Amino acid sequence: MKKVNVGIIGFGTVGSGVVKILQDRASLLFQRTGAQIKIKRICDQDLKKKRQVKVNKNILTRDAWKIINDPEIDVVVELIGGIHPAKEFIIAAIKNGKHIVTANKALLAAQGREIFNAAKKYGVDIYFEASAVAGVPIVKALREGFAADRISAVLGIVNGTCNFILSKMTKEGIGFSQALKDAQLKGYAEKNPALDINGTDSAHKLVLLNLLSFGSFVKIKDIYVEGIVDINSNDISYADEFGYVIKLLAIAKMSHGALEVRVAPTLLSKNHLLANVCGVYNAVLVEADMAGPVLFNGKGAGSYAAASAVVSDIADVARNINSSSSRRVAEYCPQAAGLKLRKIGDIESKYYIRFSAIDSPGVLAKISGILGSHGISIASVAQRERRLTKVVPVIIMTHEAKENNLRNALKEIDRLSVIKSKSVAIRVER
Amino acid sequence: MKKVNVGIIGFGTVGSGVVKILQDRASLLFQRTGAQIKIKRICDQDLKKKRQVKVNKNILTRDAWKIINDPEIDVVVELIGGIHPAKEFIIAAIKNGKHIVTANKALLAAQGREIFNAAKKYGVDIYFEASAVAGVPIVKALREGFAADRISAVLGIVNGTCNFILSKMTKEGIGFSQALKDAQLKGYAEKNPALDINGTDSAHKLVLLNLLSFGSFVKIKDIYVEGIVDINSNDISYADEFGYVIKLLAIAKMSHGALEVRVAPTLLSKNHLLANVCGVYNAVLVEADMAGPVLFNGKGAGSYAAASAVVSDIADVARNINSSSSRRVAEYCPQAAGLKLRKIGDIESKYYIRFSAIDSPGVLAKISGILGSHGISIASVAQRERRLTKVVPVIIMTHEAKENNLRNALKEIDRLSVIKSKSVAIRVER
Repeated sequence: MKKVNVGIIGFGTVGSGVVKILQDRASLLFQRTGAQIKIKRICDQDLKKKRQVKVNKNILTRDAWKIINDPEIDVVVELIGGIHPAKEFIIAAIKNGKHIVTANKALLAAQGREIFNAAKKYGVDIYFEASAVAGVPIVKALREGFAADRISAVLGIVNGTCNFILSKMTKEGIGFSQALKDAQLKGYAEKNPALDINGTDSAHKLVLLNLLSFGSFVKIKDIYVEGIVDINSNDISYADEFGYVIKLLAIAKMSHGALEVRVAPTLLSKNHLLANVCGVYNAVLVEADMAGPVLFNGKGAGSYAAASAVVSDIADVARNINSSSSRRVAEYCPQAAGLKLRKIGDIESKYYIRFSAIDSPGVLAKISGILGSHGISIASVAQRERRLTKVVPVIIMTHEAKENNLRNALKEIDRLSVIKSKSVAIRVER
Repeated sequence: MKKVNVGIIGFGTVGSGVVKILQDRASLLFQRTGAQIKIKRICDQDLKKKRQVKVNKNILTRDAWKIINDPEIDVVVELIGGIHPAKEFIIAAIKNGKHIVTANKALLAAQGREIFNAAKKYGVDIYFEASAVAGVPIVKALREGFAADRISAVLGIVNGTCNFILSKMTKEGIGFSQALKDAQLKGYAEKNPALDINGTDSAHKLVLLNLLSFGSFVKIKDIYVEGIVDINSNDISYADEFGYVIKLLAIAKMSHGALEVRVAPTLLSKNHLLANVCGVYNAVLVEADMAGPVLFNGKGAGSYAAASAVVSDIADVARNINSSSSRRVAEYCPQAAGLKLRKIGDIESKYYIRFSAIDSPGVLAKISGILGSHGISIASVAQRERRLTKVVPVIIMTHEAKENNLRNALKEIDRLSVIKSKSVAIRVER
């Protein structure tokens, strides 16, 4: 039986949850890991704030280096978020031979390669379950499970704020800004919700899901990202009539030998495994060639869900220390050759398109003519209202088409005098 | 880098899948485990059968002891199923210091305690992902993940045959026997489907889910089991009107300090995370107190889904061998004190009840009077048809009631002259 000394940097809500679990469940964790996990030191800038958990004042410090440089500490838990100084702390801790547990998706998405390389070089473990989808144990599954499988796609609803907003718009027929206000009132959206609703948070998580699924590091700037700000409640209800829901999806998939990685609102058939993931729930669908499709669905946020993931990681590090098996699993399985990233213009997809057109004879012929001339064939059309000489929505579902062809067609169509505002196109995922 | 020699007992469909994956993905598995996994020997009674995979004839044998007693073999993979001689093979292999990977749910459900104790005594690992829900990686999640959590309930749709049948009855409004025939035609049900449709297969899996969630071994004979044979398409459609679906659930949950473990058709609200798991899909919902509810959803059967789970286990054993960390995780975390099992009569549940009653004034008053005298209060009532002096269905949804009280009330009600056939009661899960 070994003692495992933990130092925690960041004593906010998640940090407090981690401390509470480590305190309350010490004997359970001992049963489960064979190691005695002890909190040696906790660092935070604010030591006076009221917290939901009591700790011995002697273990508190405002100086992270007292943790990083403490030779008795085995595991450094980084919970301060952001790139700096989190990165410097982690790299220094790795160089001091400490194992790392982190919940910092922004950091790993931006600088993961350097951090993982350092961990490999210095022979320490780095665990990051809480950096992906908190209560959904997808990192462990992708990193250690599915050993027999090649993954063809990983699709995630990985932002609870966006999923809450879209679910509410769908259920209640309200607009985006009303749904956002409700999310803010309920505490599901920040006062400044930009990082969530513009898709950035989803993109951070997608970098990690992609890495774990395909062994390839994609830079955030290379990920095509659309947020949900422009999603219109009309589009949600038209999609519904065609048998679809609209979800903000983080997608990484292999297609014709290249990798497609994007975050975008997407139409999903109501039968799709992800279609019924509603409210603040998150889910990740892994398409594995042997195991088949596997869906993981749970809470993507919440201090205890994140703390659970962090402590689960600490338990794994403790097991490794206890059985002297650090580096038993790599952070991710590198591929022999780098995978090529497909540009968004080169992808092929089915599309939902909404045109705002003057209702006059021949309009549909014009639209479909231009689509056809760009090689886009129509699967179905719906024009719900008839108001001659007024603007009405015309909905078209296409067959598979190349994105660049679609964009060119829409440019041409939007120049027609009968088209009264910018056409809306949303990709459809099988 | 170490070599890991594998011996496979049972070269049927799953065995062939395992061999194929190990052959085709040797280098991928090396990348993922750091070990070279080699098939040293394969045993089967029938060596002449055409198989989808080619192997060197020299490694084939009809004598399992050539694997069990081979000092060069590190891992014995048991895929013959059944209790005997699988148990003798496994115990002997454990005594010879071999690690075990098995897909044998019936054996582990019946004799798991002895097998796990032997593994512990002889310091070997035993992995059994394919014994639970095949393509759904729930064993790894419960055994290694959720280290911070106490689980309050685990609910599973763990039999694809039953879920296919119930889904088909729900979607198409057809009866049980028609749906069973369709399942047999599609290869989703055996010619003799008893083990599936009477709930036995679900009960085997539930023994393992319960063990992993609560650390307590429950004997199969102590599990209350109802199959789906008596499910009536009318009940499915009445449930639908009340906002529910009917699923065959395997349930293990803590309630008032005791454990409830049962397999039974159950009403689930259409919003329930398990309600949309349809067709041959399986799913397990884990209610964890920190992580929150987590749903795992995937293919519960199919030779490659099972083979994927087996190879994933072999990979874990290989990692343990490679890093000299066998017994890094226990099979399950034992609880300090044995949990008491609640008898089915003592559980409390909401119920859906269908009475077949003569439509005459005062019938409802009689029924509700008897229910009330047994302490059962009514949440809602529906009588859809009015056919005076004819038999009509009366549907009652109750509030929480004790099962014994309900049974006594139904006995009394069924003796009424206005009741024309045995009343049907189905539990409702929140």
